[in-house]
Amino acid sequence: MSLSSDSLRSADSAAEPDCSPRTITPTSPRLSAGREQFEFDLNLRHAGMRRVCLRVEWTGDLSLPALWLAGGISANRHVCANSVDGAPGWWQDAMGPQRALNPQHFCLLACDWLGADGQLDLPIDSADQADAIAYVLERLGIVRLHAFVGASYGGMVGQQFAIRHRLRLERLVSLSAAHRATPFASAFRALQRQVVTLGQTQCADAVGLSLARQLAMLSYRSADEFAERFDQPAEVRAGRVHCAAEDYLQHCGQRYVSQWSATAFLRLSESIDLHAVVPSQIRVPSHFLAVQGDWLAPAEWIAACAAEVSAPCTVERIESRFGHDAFLKDIDRVDALLHRALQTLSSEIAA
Amino acid sequence: MSLSSDSLRSADSAAEPDCSPRTITPTSPRLSAGREQFEFDLNLRHAGMRRVCLRVEWTGDLSLPALWLAGGISANRHVCANSVDGAPGWWQDAMGPQRALNPQHFCLLACDWLGADGQLDLPIDSADQADAIAYVLERLGIVRLHAFVGASYGGMVGQQFAIRHRLRLERLVSLSAAHRATPFASAFRALQRQVVTLGQTQCADAVGLSLARQLAMLSYRSADEFAERFDQPAEVRAGRVHCAAEDYLQHCGQRYVSQWSATAFLRLSESIDLHAVVPSQIRVPSHFLAVQGDWLAPAEWIAACAAEVSAPCTVERIESRFGHDAFLKDIDRVDALLHRALQTLSSEIAA
Repeated sequence: MSLSSDSLRSADSAAEPDCSPRTITPTSPRLSAGREQFEFDLNLRHAGMRRVCLRVEWTGDLSLPALWLAGGISANRHVCANSVDGAPGWWQDAMGPQRALNPQHFCLLACDWLGADGQLDLPIDSADQADAIAYVLERLGIVRLHAFVGASYGGMVGQQFAIRHRLRLERLVSLSAAHRATPFASAFRALQRQVVTLGQTQCADAVGLSLARQLAMLSYRSADEFAERFDQPAEVRAGRVHCAAEDYLQHCGQRYVSQWSATAFLRLSESIDLHAVVPSQIRVPSHFLAVQGDWLAPAEWIAACAAEVSAPCTVERIESRFGHDAFLKDIDRVDALLHRALQTLSSEIAA
Repeated sequence: MSLSSDSLRSADSAAEPDCSPRTITPTSPRLSAGREQFEFDLNLRHAGMRRVCLRVEWTGDLSLPALWLAGGISANRHVCANSVDGAPGWWQDAMGPQRALNPQHFCLLACDWLGADGQLDLPIDSADQADAIAYVLERLGIVRLHAFVGASYGGMVGQQFAIRHRLRLERLVSLSAAHRATPFASAFRALQRQVVTLGQTQCADAVGLSLARQLAMLSYRSADEFAERFDQPAEVRAGRVHCAAEDYLQHCGQRYVSQWSATAFLRLSESIDLHAVVPSQIRVPSHFLAVQGDWLAPAEWIAACAAEVSAPCTVERIESRFGHDAFLKDIDRVDALLHRALQTLSSEIAA
């Protein structure tokens, strides 16, 4: 294991799948925080023993009850502004003194996914991510998480963590994630990956990656939101038909390309499709959130997953015009769930 | 105008967006039928006066009451097996002695879309298609259609025909089509077109077109259908993750590429996004069909469109696991609607 403080990286990163202006819930840049980078050998499920590197950041004192926070495949370890990085993090709006995710009550930990740096060009399983997180917790001296709060791919990793490392976990909070990907969503991601590959084989890597990201964006949002935002009719520009959302999508695609590699996209996209757990093997108290209208993680699939959990389990359904991205965009509703899910903890802490 | 019998083309064509085996409702290859090809000057909405060619086929005697049938952008003029082409047509299953679309009662006409041959590399409007059809009806001596039965893009063209040529029309039957494309669906098509363009600029036209078609396929079907058909988990093949639906989609993409050009795809895909009518300008009796769960032509949009029609109008909603492709795959339900929509006609004919 090596412990090294690595260079600070802008946190206004691809973790945020929107490009619109955002309101920042104030968290103090003076919040106690830290960063470490761990290198170690890990037995990858589909590729055997490999040297890997997990980059971790925490906000709040390490002696506080620990929450592991995990988002989608383009989230990273910087969840909110803190003393090591004053820039807003990918879950900035979910943090604060009034929020369930309160860094005065909890130590909030997160990582850059295995594969996010594009150095691990191998099939990566959600189980690998869970194992790497367990290893790092050991190194940090954190015996037990008070909760693993994961959304989207992060929810899948949380499920794996609950199954593979349940003695390290009090409760699981899984947002917008089921026990496996749906065949329809997998097909869509497989085509996105083929678009990336088309770009790569034709020396147009950036174009391919940008297009794949733009396609992925469509699966993160709802038709209702697009209808509100991009209502202008299509128009003919220089002999081609131009649709209202194209400029926005292209901007998002370009921004993504400036921060991510094709390899990272391919391997993390694949990892979602590899995810498969037997929900009955989850034996810790669990809270699931399902968003009506999210076709990447359909509410019915999440309900079916939760029904099999071998421990006390709740499922909440919300409506959100943001679809799969509700955990990033409908913060108040998600916060309400988190308050309930972490309630026992909060009252313990308040006492 | 030139009248020429052109070479027969296989009808087992890309009009059929599925690749699975199909049951053929028997229509007789001896059914009276004909084909013509009309060349004429047409004032295109976005490109001015141009020489165009419309290829038409009819099944049933030209003296019978005439129905114009129109499907999606990959439909063509061959709707069913008949004396000029014994191969099944793209709406084969909807035809027959017990069906509403009965070639013993009606003359069933259809065309290859303007742009389908890849020769018209210009923005093509649904209004242009309607005008071309009106021109051809004039040349064929058909004063008035008993109905325009259009599905998907064909429904859009039918709406234009009803508005621009209403004296030529008794009634409109518009299936799975609204007064305009939704911004979300338009964005998805715009990205498909960019994938084609990526292929073209990189000398990988076939790969780009195939991928675009595969992406489009996803919008024609539902997640439920994929969940039933492609339930096998993803697997690692030669170091890459392979999803269950990939082989099927690739097969469909390759088949499409063997029959269609990139230009045809681009211009007809654009044409859907250009479609925009004011429903209150529809002044003929109309019947709309909406499929619950079709996100290309949402039931709410179709209902909103129908509500504005300035003539007697019905809207029917059905559930179908085939989503947008219900008009091709849930034939019995569509036939029931067509029976009701054409009822007056049928009883007139029976009398």
